Amino acid sequence: MNQPVVLISLESPHSFWRLSSEHERALSASFPGIGFRRATEEAVPHQLADAHVYFGWRFAPSWLFAAPHLKWIASPAAGTDHLPVAEAHSVGVALTCSYGFHGRPMAEHAMGLVLGFSRGLFISQRVQRNRAWWKDDLAEEFFDLAGATMTIVGCGSVGRHLAQAARAFGMNVIGVRRTPPAASEGGITWVHTTAVHQAVSVADVVVNLLPATPGTHRYFDHDLFSACKPRSLFLNLGRAATVDQSALLASLDTGHLRGAALDVFDPKPLPARHPLRLHPRVVLTPKSSVFCRAYMDEAVAFFADNLHRYLSGQPLNGLAEASATRSPLVGG
Amino acid sequence: MNQPVVLISLESPHSFWRLSSEHERALSASFPGIGFRRATEEAVPHQLADAHVYFGWRFAPSWLFAAPHLKWIASPAAGTDHLPVAEAHSVGVALTCSYGFHGRPMAEHAMGLVLGFSRGLFISQRVQRNRAWWKDDLAEEFFDLAGATMTIVGCGSVGRHLAQAARAFGMNVIGVRRTPPAASEGGITWVHTTAVHQAVSVADVVVNLLPATPGTHRYFDHDLFSACKPRSLFLNLGRAATVDQSALLASLDTGHLRGAALDVFDPKPLPARHPLRLHPRVVLTPKSSVFCRAYMDEAVAFFADNLHRYLSGQPLNGLAEASATRSPLVGG
Repeated sequence: MNQPVVLISLESPHSFWRLSSEHERALSASFPGIGFRRATEEAVPHQLADAHVYFGWRFAPSWLFAAPHLKWIASPAAGTDHLPVAEAHSVGVALTCSYGFHGRPMAEHAMGLVLGFSRGLFISQRVQRNRAWWKDDLAEEFFDLAGATMTIVGCGSVGRHLAQAARAFGMNVIGVRRTPPAASEGGITWVHTTAVHQAVSVADVVVNLLPATPGTHRYFDHDLFSACKPRSLFLNLGRAATVDQSALLASLDTGHLRGAALDVFDPKPLPARHPLRLHPRVVLTPKSSVFCRAYMDEAVAFFADNLHRYLSGQPLNGLAEASATRSPLVGG
Repeated sequence: MNQPVVLISLESPHSFWRLSSEHERALSASFPGIGFRRATEEAVPHQLADAHVYFGWRFAPSWLFAAPHLKWIASPAAGTDHLPVAEAHSVGVALTCSYGFHGRPMAEHAMGLVLGFSRGLFISQRVQRNRAWWKDDLAEEFFDLAGATMTIVGCGSVGRHLAQAARAFGMNVIGVRRTPPAASEGGITWVHTTAVHQAVSVADVVVNLLPATPGTHRYFDHDLFSACKPRSLFLNLGRAATVDQSALLASLDTGHLRGAALDVFDPKPLPARHPLRLHPRVVLTPKSSVFCRAYMDEAVAFFADNLHRYLSGQPLNGLAEASATRSPLVGG
């Protein structure tokens, strides 16, 4: 057998999502027996003929036909809903996502959004140009994080990071999960998804971290929003498909929800005059919750660890299930 | 001697800054030998004649002449720059501020402001109505808190709370203080005020918590802002008088400072077209950093503890110095 070939296609307009020459040199130094080759996304199908491993952001289903020796598709992303999980599985190709390092930036992002509402910072920014003084408004609006409750729906690796940050501010955290740990691990009160209505009914802040699967499609519907505590705050840092946006808007318009912060929405971007863009109590971020200057350092370290496993025949971390009904974010 | 009289004047448009009947009942129950009497601010001078202790937000210097038996003025506020410290001292009346409970809400407020900039939340809120997509802008702008450095100038009780919150996000914290502790207490790198220029030169975020004293007037001047690390963020949650606003604006306009968040400014409120109101990289909050639903609960508990000390002849906590050159926030 020839030298194993790893094809890498990690391009991005953003430096922190690109493979640097330092990353490439470090991989080559750590794996002297491996031939690392880089390709632009356009060139990938023409470069897959002799590749055993692919490490990249995207993988089109048709590329599988051009990859007779391929054994493993490694993605630096946390989700796998944009990847051909079932197709790869059907031809015996492993597909892995990455995890363990998205939680930190996402926890920063989520806590910033929560505090932006709880401390009246978003209101302040909006009115500071045209209102003489708005102290009385904020005195009505603000709430203390200490003693408040955050319920995290889809509480996996990212949720545990977020829970840690929330608890540092004195919040109580409820983690909703299909497979909750038995004990009060991580200072989180764990509940099963069957009790999600109860879990959101006591929360001042609900954070959705659900992955997009057939089982989570429009999981946050009219019924679940209605079960939320009056004047609570809703954050979506998971996937847009898990939220019924009309139901969300209705809950905002009646005042049942205090506000919403959305890092994901459908379509992306939203049309110019979409009501979620214009709503005075909605803050949108452009899927930037995973922005992290150290992203590729972490993703390469995760991949290198998995490559060691691959070469020594150990099971890979982050294997996506062919059924695509769960992801490592909430599975377990 | 008659029953000691405590005159209370704790009015506010905001419920969390008012004494409730529950607070009053609790005080009466804890101190059966004390006569508690409440007065509106207008009535205070007419009610001081037989009062031994005054517990209230405001105290006019002239009121001292109407208070022949007064021994102690207790304020529920953290600062004493609005109170007649020197005048009270000259006639042998003790004056105390309160401390220990402002740190939690102020830490929430400060971290919200930091994350609002670091995660691009303020930019997002500003452009979400009129920009198709702004992901590339945020990719340039954001920064990770983990590994970043926060320098807290005037790092006392509030600063320690803030340091704890910042460290929960993986930040390094430098505390600047006239009387720094010897060891690395609280996970903070302590430096003396003589090294403040060096301390701000390595900080991604500078937080000003200085009290207003003759020694801190316009402490943040052109020289100190110039010493700040390029593209750093400046927060003022201390007192407006400690910052030269023209120097701040100049540092923002040259791009030397990434942005500024101000909970205090002069005058308050700022005039309608003031450049700090209109600056795209300035966020103003209306002195709301100490907003806390539990404020009066905490202030009454602090007062009750001090009243026990007063009655048993122990030294009072939070005594303001007559020179007014220091406050418990930064003193030590």
